[in-house]
Amino acid sequence: MAPSTPRLVVPVDLKKKPWEQKLPLHNRWHPGIPPVAEIKVSEVFRVEMVDWTGGMIKDNDSATDVKTIDLSSVHYLSGPIRVLDEEGNPAQPGDLLAVEICNLGPLPGDEWGFTASFDRENGGGFLTDHFPCATKAIWYFEGIYAYSPQIPGVRFPGLTHPGIVGTAPSRDLLNIWNDREREVEENGLKHLKLCEVLHSRPLANLPSTKGCHLGKIQKGTPEWEKIAIEAARTIPGRENGGNCDIKNLSRGSKVYLPVFIEGANLSTGDMHFSQGDGEIAFCGAIEMSGFLELKCEIIKGGMKEYLTPMGPTPLHVNPIFEIGPVEPRFSEWLVFEGISVDESGRQHYLDASVAYKRAVLNAIDYLSKFGYSKEQMYLLLSCCPCEGRISGIVDSPNAVATLAIPTSIFDQDIRPKTKVPVGPRLVRTPDVLKCTYDGNLPVTKNPSAMI
Amino acid sequence: MAPSTPRLVVPVDLKKKPWEQKLPLHNRWHPGIPPVAEIKVSEVFRVEMVDWTGGMIKDNDSATDVKTIDLSSVHYLSGPIRVLDEEGNPAQPGDLLAVEICNLGPLPGDEWGFTASFDRENGGGFLTDHFPCATKAIWYFEGIYAYSPQIPGVRFPGLTHPGIVGTAPSRDLLNIWNDREREVEENGLKHLKLCEVLHSRPLANLPSTKGCHLGKIQKGTPEWEKIAIEAARTIPGRENGGNCDIKNLSRGSKVYLPVFIEGANLSTGDMHFSQGDGEIAFCGAIEMSGFLELKCEIIKGGMKEYLTPMGPTPLHVNPIFEIGPVEPRFSEWLVFEGISVDESGRQHYLDASVAYKRAVLNAIDYLSKFGYSKEQMYLLLSCCPCEGRISGIVDSPNAVATLAIPTSIFDQDIRPKTKVPVGPRLVRTPDVLKCTYDGNLPVTKNPSAMI
Amino acid sequence: MAPSTPRLVVPVDLKKKPWEQKLPLHNRWHPGIPPVAEIKVSEVFRVEMVDWTGGMIKDNDSATDVKTIDLSSVHYLSGPIRVLDEEGNPAQPGDLLAVEICNLGPLPGDEWGFTASFDRENGGGFLTDHFPCATKAIWYFEGIYAYSPQIPGVRFPGLTHPGIVGTAPSRDLLNIWNDREREVEENGLKHLKLCEVLHSRPLANLPSTKGCHLGKIQKGTPEWEKIAIEAARTIPGRENGGNCDIKNLSRGSKVYLPVFIEGANLSTGDMHFSQGDGEIAFCGAIEMSGFLELKCEIIKGGMKEYLTPMGPTPLHVNPIFEIGPVEPRFSEWLVFEGISVDESGRQHYLDASVAYKRAVLNAIDYLSKFGYSKEQMYLLLSCCPCEGRISGIVDSPNAVATLAIPTSIFDQDIRPKTKVPVGPRLVRTPDVLKCTYDGNLPVTKNPSAMI
Amino acid sequence: MAPSTPRLVVPVDLKKKPWEQKLPLHNRWHPGIPPVAEIKVSEVFRVEMVDWTGGMIKDNDSATDVKTIDLSSVHYLSGPIRVLDEEGNPAQPGDLLAVEICNLGPLPGDEWGFTASFDRENGGGFLTDHFPCATKAIWYFEGIYAYSPQIPGVRFPGLTHPGIVGTAPSRDLLNIWNDREREVEENGLKHLKLCEVLHSRPLANLPSTKGCHLGKIQKGTPEWEKIAIEAARTIPGRENGGNCDIKNLSRGSKVYLPVFIEGANLSTGDMHFSQGDGEIAFCGAIEMSGFLELKCEIIKGGMKEYLTPMGPTPLHVNPIFEIGPVEPRFSEWLVFEGISVDESGRQHYLDASVAYKRAVLNAIDYLSKFGYSKEQMYLLLSCCPCEGRISGIVDSPNAVATLAIPTSIFDQDIRPKTKVPVGPRLVRTPDVLKCTYDGNLPVTKNPSAMI
Repeated sequence: MAPSTPRLVVPVDLKKKPWEQKLPLHNRWHPGIPPVAEIKVSEVFRVEMVDWTGGMIKDNDSATDVKTIDLSSVHYLSGPIRVLDEEGNPAQPGDLLAVEICNLGPLPGDEWGFTASFDRENGGGFLTDHFPCATKAIWYFEGIYAYSPQIPGVRFPGLTHPGIVGTAPSRDLLNIWNDREREVEENGLKHLKLCEVLHSRPLANLPSTKGCHLGKIQKGTPEWEKIAIEAARTIPGRENGGNCDIKNLSRGSKVYLPVFIEGANLSTGDMHFSQGDGEIAFCGAIEMSGFLELKCEIIKGGMKEYLTPMGPTPLHVNPIFEIGPVEPRFSEWLVFEGISVDESGRQHYLDASVAYKRAVLNAIDYLSKFGYSKEQMYLLLSCCPCEGRISGIVDSPNAVATLAIPTSIFDQDIRPKTKVPVGPRLVRTPDVLKCTYDGNLPVTKNPSAMI
Repeated sequence: MAPSTPRLVVPVDLKKKPWEQKLPLHNRWHPGIPPVAEIKVSEVFRVEMVDWTGGMIKDNDSATDVKTIDLSSVHYLSGPIRVLDEEGNPAQPGDLLAVEICNLGPLPGDEWGFTASFDRENGGGFLTDHFPCATKAIWYFEGIYAYSPQIPGVRFPGLTHPGIVGTAPSRDLLNIWNDREREVEENGLKHLKLCEVLHSRPLANLPSTKGCHLGKIQKGTPEWEKIAIEAARTIPGRENGGNCDIKNLSRGSKVYLPVFIEGANLSTGDMHFSQGDGEIAFCGAIEMSGFLELKCEIIKGGMKEYLTPMGPTPLHVNPIFEIGPVEPRFSEWLVFEGISVDESGRQHYLDASVAYKRAVLNAIDYLSKFGYSKEQMYLLLSCCPCEGRISGIVDSPNAVATLAIPTSIFDQDIRPKTKVPVGPRLVRTPDVLKCTYDGNLPVTKNPSAMI
Repeated sequence: MAPSTPRLVVPVDLKKKPWEQKLPLHNRWHPGIPPVAEIKVSEVFRVEMVDWTGGMIKDNDSATDVKTIDLSSVHYLSGPIRVLDEEGNPAQPGDLLAVEICNLGPLPGDEWGFTASFDRENGGGFLTDHFPCATKAIWYFEGIYAYSPQIPGVRFPGLTHPGIVGTAPSRDLLNIWNDREREVEENGLKHLKLCEVLHSRPLANLPSTKGCHLGKIQKGTPEWEKIAIEAARTIPGRENGGNCDIKNLSRGSKVYLPVFIEGANLSTGDMHFSQGDGEIAFCGAIEMSGFLELKCEIIKGGMKEYLTPMGPTPLHVNPIFEIGPVEPRFSEWLVFEGISVDESGRQHYLDASVAYKRAVLNAIDYLSKFGYSKEQMYLLLSCCPCEGRISGIVDSPNAVATLAIPTSIFDQDIRPKTKVPVGPRLVRTPDVLKCTYDGNLPVTKNPSAMI
Repeated sequence: MAPSTPRLVVPVDLKKKPWEQKLPLHNRWHPGIPPVAEIKVSEVFRVEMVDWTGGMIKDNDSATDVKTIDLSSVHYLSGPIRVLDEEGNPAQPGDLLAVEICNLGPLPGDEWGFTASFDRENGGGFLTDHFPCATKAIWYFEGIYAYSPQIPGVRFPGLTHPGIVGTAPSRDLLNIWNDREREVEENGLKHLKLCEVLHSRPLANLPSTKGCHLGKIQKGTPEWEKIAIEAARTIPGRENGGNCDIKNLSRGSKVYLPVFIEGANLSTGDMHFSQGDGEIAFCGAIEMSGFLELKCEIIKGGMKEYLTPMGPTPLHVNPIFEIGPVEPRFSEWLVFEGISVDESGRQHYLDASVAYKRAVLNAIDYLSKFGYSKEQMYLLLSCCPCEGRISGIVDSPNAVATLAIPTSIFDQDIRPKTKVPVGPRLVRTPDVLKCTYDGNLPVTKNPSAMI
């Protein structure tokens, strides 16, 4: 007889707030956040998720919600889910948790998403020094395809995936995180010159009680107070997986996650209809609510067998991934290159981040010649299935990074033509939704750019 | 009637030294290096090239040649080739030169290559702080496939490409290069903390008369003296293309190169049978001699039309690439992730280079569990068709980079198994050829690594 | 503002019989079957469908339901759907109807399917002379993957598609169908020697009132009687599309269907989780219930513009298809070849059907060496994503056909090994569900086959 | 030390006739044709080949050479090559010969090919009843790409392969071939009605001394007379492989060939720069001279282990193939469908050949709307990388076959547009080279076709 339909272990009701859900959501990593559900290995189960902001960004005609967003409460995650083996024993620290993504998608009745860049003083993004304003594009889905009224002439199939899949950290791992990130936050500006070039602020996202949600733990209780003050933010990817934003982690993929506490306490969220490598605009994927259908296996003692710690403790590990067999198929790519020389002409040493920034800026400027605003292309390269590569990382002093864009996502031929001038190009309107930037930080200009 | 077979415009004779060739090779970028050949747009022509070292690395049983190599004379390039339009007029500064790679391959009778990591005091590499010794693996070709006696159990189809395709810089561009790279060389250690983590030395490769070859310009002449002292080294990729090491630039690809001087003065070299993204071991591709069959078009005024300068002058541009339709097809990938926390546990800020280093170290350690030495895997990940991605570059403080490895290049199943222990694995011998490290620099250890 | 979620225009309730549905299903092609729904171009709408047998095959432990199936009532189709242009005018004869498949899948809560071969006296199949018994395999879905308890060691991603997409025929076209198919049925055995080799019986499927369902037209009414006697069966694909069984017609594909009557009257059904080229077992795909999300455009006058009639009337046309960008990616294929020489050794002249039969028989015998029964492989090659090609159709007297099987669907390496004997292979049990064959027709034996 | 460059075991000199070559070519299958070379397993060796006609078709401005060609002497093959195991013992009957294609390509200096359709009275082709005239198109190669002055606006990468790879038949197998093919030739018209539809003449190609070349066996000797009278023609693919025309058999592929006589006696020829499934025009690939670099393994006793005879004797087997990992990547396909109803409207029973013919006719007519003559498209679909599929072969009475064409080979968008009329299309001239048809056979017309 057939196994039953995937069991819905975490439902969400989009008409309710994240903290009002039947199984309340959480937005921090902490071993003390209690599981809301339990699954057994080999069963296929279903998890529903709100979008990463919990509904703060709306399908409307203004980017004000982006500009004024309260980022202290992202990302809203579903779970934690406690994982049991076939005999009903929970996964143990040191095990490896193999999570197969059997299926995923938007929630029925909520087939839309958004891509946005934050205001420079409230979130920022990879190019926030160039583009300090909050901007927003809405995407509608037609099955596998997405299109945006704000970025006309573009339509592409999504490589849908969860931005966040992770296990709960142990107390020791949590302490490691908080210590090392505090050090950057406190001393960063002094010796990390990189942040002159990459302005995404703040330098780190340290624990904060503001906006903190801990699932079943009631706000205001002593337990909440104790955990909220030390629970890690979900912004960066870390040893537990978390916000890895690996855009190919779609149907049929597998994640091998380290288990740090009993039961593993798996959480998921931040569903992306599609994302480009780098997710450069920060709110950069096509963000949406959605569901996952998952199947877990426990590899007993698998951390030691398969993961080598890379750092001072056995906890300094990273997950492993297997990519699934179903991806959109593109045959033609236009590739932009960047080297680690910044906009001021200054040479950096083998810096892939700077090189990638230049590659992205090159791509934006190129594509804007085809009738688009630069903001349109900034958002597009953040969410379309483009590939960001580290091409050369050894030829001092230049790192070489590349950004490859599938040409078929455009309704016009964007390749260079051998005969120029090539005649009038379409002006693609309307533009992205956009707010003013009211801050005081200087805006980086490309000294050579045309008006 | 058929067009004739591609005209051989630059022949090489592998029994002769690079400077003894009929059309002598060059190993610097400078506008004053005179063309050795001339081609017209639309004709398909053939260029032959020695390997990047000009034959210094041999197919033998020792890595001593790697350890003691004189890097002052790399890369040996074929050309420059002067490009004319249909009327016989040379390409002009401001034009864009579209170079199509119609065909390429090893030179008949020389179907082998090498991958090596340099000694830490003489060249280094991406992981030279971990692997300070000179190592070498020889690869033999069987048509599209390569295999190495030093890395048994591995065989893969090559995605063959030229590491270097570039045009000559103008004097102004050359000055920009020399100034900005000198600045790093002179001040680098003071404010670029990154180099504590990425030890590939030296910080930059400034002009040097030692080892300099300037094609038709005789060594020791006043002209040679004048040019040699200022001609740029070919190590890093720059505005003129050059050493981009874009591993997908294979048959059917196109490069759109900016033209800085009359005639464009196109040079090519550094043929790779195969390379992984990043080319991490530095001498990291499967390096070989080879040939290119090319076809050029001139896009008049194309720089202004298609390239936006990114920096203080109109010369701060980068080439654009179109990727060809013929690539090896892999369906299963195992993916390793790294975050920007280094081996000591220290947090870096959105540093894709550090994240990629950790991803590579994770992959090496993982694969070494399947019977390999870490040096074998270091060289393999440097030259096999693996993909290095910038997955997330906005989630402070962690950049997330990934390294995806096609599993079918191995003769064993390297994926994690859900049942462990999985029993004895093969010990893959022999190992890479290896020298001692006799220097004094400290070797980075992974504090958690097993012996 | 977002367009609403795809409008459900044809719902089905799996707890009801096909003729009890709110919008009753039909199983014949006829211009007089009235539309059950209406849609406008550009809107994305949803159609639900029962499996092609309307629930006659069960998820149980016996193939008796297959053996005794009443084939007079297949296929149950959803629709007809009347298509209007933007002004509300119906599509006209001579138009071309572009139908985009935005999304599709199993019905939630019904994630399973079946593959079966019919009894030789009741339906047959491509190899029914070799395999005269009714057999059945049940498939369960885990997201994109299917597996069968009856065919262990196999799991593959589905290339899900509708077997049937078609428009209603005009009266003239219907007459053409009935005339030409009657001629085969009546005279077939005399001059079509092919049917000695390809035993799928009957020769044609002529109109029959038995089992006939006409949607909104009540059984037993005069109108029903009139239409039932002449309405075409849905078994073969014809000029209106219909049962094309094109396995790549998945997400993102487009069908360009000729319009023969006002409103086009689009019907769909016969959902396949996966199918191999040829669908050789007849009930050969992974048959399931399911849904389609579609979007239509009308190309006014498009039949004349894009389709050339191939036959005596302007109605002798065929649809055109565009294949979507999302397909499972396989890199390794094992290919079996057949030539047009039959099992008795008799030469046929450029007969691709005979050649393909031999290729399939070769593949079945080969795969059965890896622990499987031939019936297991017959069903597998019928439903897995294998490719059937016409490789050579001009080299008298042999047609060459090939069958390519993706090797990764098996959990063992099925490629030939250069060292034999290769040792014990797994016996894969249990086997398919199977009935006895109680008929009198002779069973074709391969004279050279081992027991 | 490196293995030497692939040993050239069969050289050809294109300035000499096939029978004047140093190692004379042969154009028949017979066990008595003596080997011209010997190779050992595991060594990579090189074979050069003339084009299949031995130079009878020229790169000139007329199709007269096609019309008047003497087909009694095709195909010219290189070999036979005797295969030895590691100890120097020859392969034995019952072994399986694994032949890996390491590399292949055109012969340097001869980078061109031709596609042609024969005159109906001298060779014919799949559509010779529609297109009875001899036609010719010349193709020039630019690396991986081919283009033709006679079919402008088309350029595509080749999936280069040998049309013929085969082992020598044993005497018993030869007798089987001759007997069964004679039976068709003698009785064909009586009971094979299929040939009314598929006119490619003659019905079979029986042994003939005319044009016969037997390699080292001198013409006119008693041995020659004895063998020539019974040696099989090379036209059809058979149990020994031979003229399989499997278009995906390119770099990295493997063929597993049955061994029928001691030494295997491997022969190769009929190199194709590119071919479409079906090779419909008969001289339908891009025919060229070329080279293969091969590596053999012997699987002792492999025939019994891996091949099941399908017919009355153990010799009724077919080879197995593994497809290589390097193929041109296309993402968009336009698909044409055919059903087994012929041009006169007559219904055929599950006839894939008729269905494919209709699909091809549909495609030709469609594409001719984009400015091409039908003859241009007939030749193009014969040689471009299009895929011919058997989509449904069980739905009585219609077989459904499809022809999928990669859209990117055209320089215009050939997909249907939703807005018609779509305005003027390019007229693509010049046309193919063409002769008159001077025969008396009736030409099939599509009754509904426009002039």
